[in-house]
Amino acid sequence: MIYITRKEHFNAAHKLARPEWSDEKNIEVFGKCANVNWHGHNFNLHVTVKGQPNELTGFVIDLKLLSSLIKDLVVEKLDHKNLNLDVDFMKGVMPSTENLAIKIWEQLVDVIKQHNCELHSIKLFETENNYVEYYG
Amino acid sequence: MIYITRKEHFNAAHKLARPEWSDEKNIEVFGKCANVNWHGHNFNLHVTVKGQPNELTGFVIDLKLLSSLIKDLVVEKLDHKNLNLDVDFMKGVMPSTENLAIKIWEQLVDVIKQHNCELHSIKLFETENNYVEYYG
Amino acid sequence: MIYITRKEHFNAAHKLARPEWSDEKNIEVFGKCANVNWHGHNFNLHVTVKGQPNELTGFVIDLKLLSSLIKDLVVEKLDHKNLNLDVDFMKGVMPSTENLAIKIWEQLVDVIKQHNCELHSIKLFETENNYVEYYG
Amino acid sequence: MIYITRKEHFNAAHKLARPEWSDEKNIEVFGKCANVNWHGHNFNLHVTVKGQPNELTGFVIDLKLLSSLIKDLVVEKLDHKNLNLDVDFMKGVMPSTENLAIKIWEQLVDVIKQHNCELHSIKLFETENNYVEYYG
Amino acid sequence: MIYITRKEHFNAAHKLARPEWSDEKNIEVFGKCANVNWHGHNFNLHVTVKGQPNELTGFVIDLKLLSSLIKDLVVEKLDHKNLNLDVDFMKGVMPSTENLAIKIWEQLVDVIKQHNCELHSIKLFETENNYVEYYG
Amino acid sequence: MIYITRKEHFNAAHKLARPEWSDEKNIEVFGKCANVNWHGHNFNLHVTVKGQPNELTGFVIDLKLLSSLIKDLVVEKLDHKNLNLDVDFMKGVMPSTENLAIKIWEQLVDVIKQHNCELHSIKLFETENNYVEYYG
Repeated sequence: MIYITRKEHFNAAHKLARPEWSDEKNIEVFGKCANVNWHGHNFNLHVTVKGQPNELTGFVIDLKLLSSLIKDLVVEKLDHKNLNLDVDFMKGVMPSTENLAIKIWEQLVDVIKQHNCELHSIKLFETENNYVEYYG
Repeated sequence: MIYITRKEHFNAAHKLARPEWSDEKNIEVFGKCANVNWHGHNFNLHVTVKGQPNELTGFVIDLKLLSSLIKDLVVEKLDHKNLNLDVDFMKGVMPSTENLAIKIWEQLVDVIKQHNCELHSIKLFETENNYVEYYG
Repeated sequence: MIYITRKEHFNAAHKLARPEWSDEKNIEVFGKCANVNWHGHNFNLHVTVKGQPNELTGFVIDLKLLSSLIKDLVVEKLDHKNLNLDVDFMKGVMPSTENLAIKIWEQLVDVIKQHNCELHSIKLFETENNYVEYYG
Repeated sequence: MIYITRKEHFNAAHKLARPEWSDEKNIEVFGKCANVNWHGHNFNLHVTVKGQPNELTGFVIDLKLLSSLIKDLVVEKLDHKNLNLDVDFMKGVMPSTENLAIKIWEQLVDVIKQHNCELHSIKLFETENNYVEYYG
Repeated sequence: MIYITRKEHFNAAHKLARPEWSDEKNIEVFGKCANVNWHGHNFNLHVTVKGQPNELTGFVIDLKLLSSLIKDLVVEKLDHKNLNLDVDFMKGVMPSTENLAIKIWEQLVDVIKQHNCELHSIKLFETENNYVEYYG
Repeated sequence: MIYITRKEHFNAAHKLARPEWSDEKNIEVFGKCANVNWHGHNFNLHVTVKGQPNELTGFVIDLKLLSSLIKDLVVEKLDHKNLNLDVDFMKGVMPSTENLAIKIWEQLVDVIKQHNCELHSIKLFETENNYVEYYG
């Protein structure tokens, strides 16, 4: 078994706030992440796939294919978007880095299985100093 | 003359769009940067100051002082904010990286002069691949 | 289960040398790391916590809380300090990166358990080219 | 058990192409990686070793020793070389990042066992955006 | 005047060797960079343009346009290529980082002038530790 | 004219404190940088040289030569050393990053002139967030 990772990135706006809570309560719980008029990040996304290298190509998966799956199913939907308002698979989900990583996993897990390998992990950097890892 | 730089960072939302233009025209000119519901970035900011090292301390400027000037006058006002809506010194200014760098320069140039040194440049990274430099 | 990491840093001096050995023996075993008058590093510290995201906040742990725990219990005690002389929890411990990572784990493991999550790993960079990981 | 990593790097040329296939077929399968006249990369290599810290030194393994093992057995043979033509342990092997990581593992696994510790993983970056991990 | 930079990258093979010299002489002068069967690098390229921000857009130059000029005129011709054999504008030129930077400047200087701004510099990284800057 | 840079690094201990001042006064002026028992950093050093590329080699200067000059005259004397106590060219000099950069310039400026090129600048990173540039 060998693990191969492709790194992609996207830039998005979000805020952490529950609509049923007052602004004061949201600020109390989420601090400046609850800023009413949003804030944003350059997210870095590492998608790791595991499998056996193909005997002829030496590839677990063609990285051009992996990159285009990530772009079509994830990056295209998140890049230059508002995570609270614009993204179908984030509807009704608090856009913490944790939840965003889980939802990105769900977008990719089945389609990657169709290519003789398996999704192993999602590693998502919100900033250089904060990141989340999810293994399903 | 010697040059010393302090790097700070902030996370903000913005969009590039002229209010007097239609959404279509804004998308045509600014592409996905005009997304109606905003997007955002982790900005990295390098502030460079020039002067002579003090004979006793060896400092052009105390970096704790420089850092706190940048935080008070710039980062505090931009971090976890919306550059189009929330920032006094960006009111009425298109928040391109170019214009943001110029406005950051204006916040710092006079106060740094009061500390026996001079602001030399603002270097502002919008992403790892795009950055702007301004020398006044 | 999801894993979230906060990165902090500190700058410290140390030397690798056993007091009961001669300087010659210490140089023989530890090379230039045994320099009598110390040397130092910018250490980067990644603290990874695991748990379930809270249903209301989407957080495994509030990163502001995690950051302040790390700062109070670890960084405050190590930053701009001498690892051989100044740090209570390193007394009598050879300050190799391995041992430092184990001791940092011990400072954090119990207090993190009080916040509905668990310490998963300590990753400690001594330089860009050398790092240690510890999982308890 | 604790894990320690040493990072090294090498610059090499390669191409991904099967000699028994036509140029057209190689381009179809491998894209621009099949460029007849080669291309190349700055590879970054992370070698992770696991074990118990020695009671006297605090070391799982002396990093100067680990670095010189990696240099002698791996970097020396790959740096400024052609992976398809110049490297004894890559003869007859498609030089994908996956296969290269496996072959690097094989060069190191036995010799590291002779030093009271064990090879844990090879992490090999072909570019900043593509990397492979192998655990034996 | 404000300066804006776009970073792009390409992966290429090359060798440093004069065809009229013997292999021995080439090794003597260029060391392992003269390896007969080539070696290669991940090159990082920073292209800096200077001008006035446009009053309506806030842009010195649209970075999507700058990126596509660099890709069409430079990256497309260098990426996954052999710098000694495959590149029209490097024919007969020793592919040192210095000469490559000068030739990249020549590809871009005139076309950038047609967009109300001016090429300021080419910064070309051959490795993380070696880079060249050229200002025309 | 073209500019070429070689990056090297060294790890050192220092403190910022004037021996004729009390500990209290040193702490007041230099903060935690005055810690009596020292602290330390991983310094990154960029040495930039300017000149014309040689017609035969394409080099302003052979980077192996530049690297070995920096190692012999600078890194060897600073690496794993105490900047206040162990370094001949820092005797009697407050080891601020500013002063250290100036002294490194002085070690290199004359010897580089003997190789058909000129020292252009010293860029010295004390941490990822603080750096100094000196042009003579």
